Amino acid sequence: MEKRTYFDWAASSYGNPSSLHSEGRESKHILESARKRCAAVLNIPPETLSFTSGGTESNSIVLFSNLKRPGKGRIISSLAEHTSVREGMETLEKMGKPIGKIAVDSTGAVTAETFAKAMEKYDDVRFASIMSVNNETGAITDISSLNEIRKSSKAPIHFHCDLVQAVGKIPVDIQNWEIDSASISAHKIDGPRGIGLLYLRKPIEVFYAGGGQENGIRGGTENTQGAAALADCLEKYANKQAVQEEYARAKARWKKLISALSTMERCTLIPTCRSADDDRFSPYILQAAFKNIPGEVMARALDDLGFAVSTGSACSSSSPERPVLAAMNIEESLRIEGIRISQGYSTTNEDIDLLLEAITEVLKFL
Amino acid sequence: MEKRTYFDWAASSYGNPSSLHSEGRESKHILESARKRCAAVLNIPPETLSFTSGGTESNSIVLFSNLKRPGKGRIISSLAEHTSVREGMETLEKMGKPIGKIAVDSTGAVTAETFAKAMEKYDDVRFASIMSVNNETGAITDISSLNEIRKSSKAPIHFHCDLVQAVGKIPVDIQNWEIDSASISAHKIDGPRGIGLLYLRKPIEVFYAGGGQENGIRGGTENTQGAAALADCLEKYANKQAVQEEYARAKARWKKLISALSTMERCTLIPTCRSADDDRFSPYILQAAFKNIPGEVMARALDDLGFAVSTGSACSSSSPERPVLAAMNIEESLRIEGIRISQGYSTTNEDIDLLLEAITEVLKFL
Repeated sequence: MEKRTYFDWAASSYGNPSSLHSEGRESKHILESARKRCAAVLNIPPETLSFTSGGTESNSIVLFSNLKRPGKGRIISSLAEHTSVREGMETLEKMGKPIGKIAVDSTGAVTAETFAKAMEKYDDVRFASIMSVNNETGAITDISSLNEIRKSSKAPIHFHCDLVQAVGKIPVDIQNWEIDSASISAHKIDGPRGIGLLYLRKPIEVFYAGGGQENGIRGGTENTQGAAALADCLEKYANKQAVQEEYARAKARWKKLISALSTMERCTLIPTCRSADDDRFSPYILQAAFKNIPGEVMARALDDLGFAVSTGSACSSSSPERPVLAAMNIEESLRIEGIRISQGYSTTNEDIDLLLEAITEVLKFL
Repeated sequence: MEKRTYFDWAASSYGNPSSLHSEGRESKHILESARKRCAAVLNIPPETLSFTSGGTESNSIVLFSNLKRPGKGRIISSLAEHTSVREGMETLEKMGKPIGKIAVDSTGAVTAETFAKAMEKYDDVRFASIMSVNNETGAITDISSLNEIRKSSKAPIHFHCDLVQAVGKIPVDIQNWEIDSASISAHKIDGPRGIGLLYLRKPIEVFYAGGGQENGIRGGTENTQGAAALADCLEKYANKQAVQEEYARAKARWKKLISALSTMERCTLIPTCRSADDDRFSPYILQAAFKNIPGEVMARALDDLGFAVSTGSACSSSSPERPVLAAMNIEESLRIEGIRISQGYSTTNEDIDLLLEAITEVLKFL
């Protein structure tokens, strides 16, 4: 290899993709190659993808682009969105943007009927944010059916979809769902923290992108190594075949878990209508409550026995409220008792057995 | 080690610092330990530091917190700030915030006199953003002297300092400079992309922090591995002794480079007043122009010979304008011819010799 001497430390300690020299071009090549690989897995054009620092930032960029949109068009979102969307909506409302809420059904999903109702109630909707897989219950919203309703609107509506719990977990079809923008995070699919993707069918004017990187969508020196790692994860877990195979395995494990939990007298699945073989939910997430055991106590007891489960979203763990469960009209006692059990690619059948044993053990003493 | 079974994939594929279980606590421990290590090196309390995705985001969080500040107080910044500040100021201005510009001297630095003048001109300043080391010329602004003037203001002024090109390069004293906030980036000091720090002397109300992580300053799952890597870099390069030693070595190499360039007939240092042994500049950055060779051509010619130099900041490389040089009143021909040479910890004396030979070579043919 040719000897290279590097005199561009002020740009970065190693090749900055925005620099024009050989190291910069190589770094740019890694970045663009990662983008192409991600795009190929997701079956969308590479130029529709911008790398961000993660799901929260991807959601924020799109939400706050509303500040650049002229006019008073309403921004609506479901009552069960991720904290980053829920809090973003609050900020937009405080800044004078008219907002609206879409109810969720008892599973935590948005139905076509509810979406249609929201569209009737508000005749000035220009932006809608609805997640694909709910991060607390695993409820799957049929994005394709919502798209049909959206398309019937007279004025164009930007449809944003949080795919953080969907990509690599359930079949996702960005093109056919005709969504305008979507958020993806690496660390939910075995990737590193600090890297995610924002899909944009068409360019948007962002509220702020200092530096102008990523086609003016996201400023800051591009995280090339993160981008390459995300591409690795998507290729491994988000291609059609991998999703199908992992989904089948996850579902078999979840069937086993849910069947066993259903026989436990003190266990209530959230929502109660969830069956062991229920395609309305992602087989990676389960919410359940144990009578007279607050979720936090249950999680701690299981933790002591060597099992990591959570009470609600980690991004809202500092708040004892369970807004998503409340939106589902889950009664307060169950909300307090709810724990979230979520599995991944390395979870085994044996893990399910062990978890069931541990829960049985805890129930003896609590 | 105790066998652990992980059922919190929906939070993250591995321990999420916001989760309460053992994996989450371990991840939290890594994060907080990284924060303490960074704080120890910078000689500030750990709770004043928030991890961000980098310098651009750190600057943005502070700049846009002005949108949460009531009243019409003016936001001022120097004409030589990094793109992320310059563009952020433009956005704030468009949103109706009164802004103001502080001139820079012929080196690219803000003098106490100019700062005092700006404070006289505008009697409603509430926020000032001034960088420590200019990223195009290496000019060092004496932040401490500006602080004295700031303190004489009747109304309190938030003083933000972009330390991206300063930390690990020149002696930095956040406490004694009494700055209110500062930005730090890992990848400028041999660290990974996608991680940085925001120092906040006192908590601020941020424009938006979906998720509430980092004490509500920055949302999104915390980048633990990045935080640990940044702590490693700070410990290695930003401790007092390392800065002194590396500074001395960098200065010796720069003295050699600048002395030699000064003897080249076609070379003009930018600014021309820069001497080989000039403490007004960081010995890590140098701007120079070569007569009748546009900077881009020079950079490409050097690149072909195996040397990476740049034309201006990578974060504004997509724009042919050189706003920092223009603010320094550098004539247009020199702005077009300017290249930035910047060195780092692994640069050697031999590298300087090789670069000088390469420049001599290029000058023969161009």
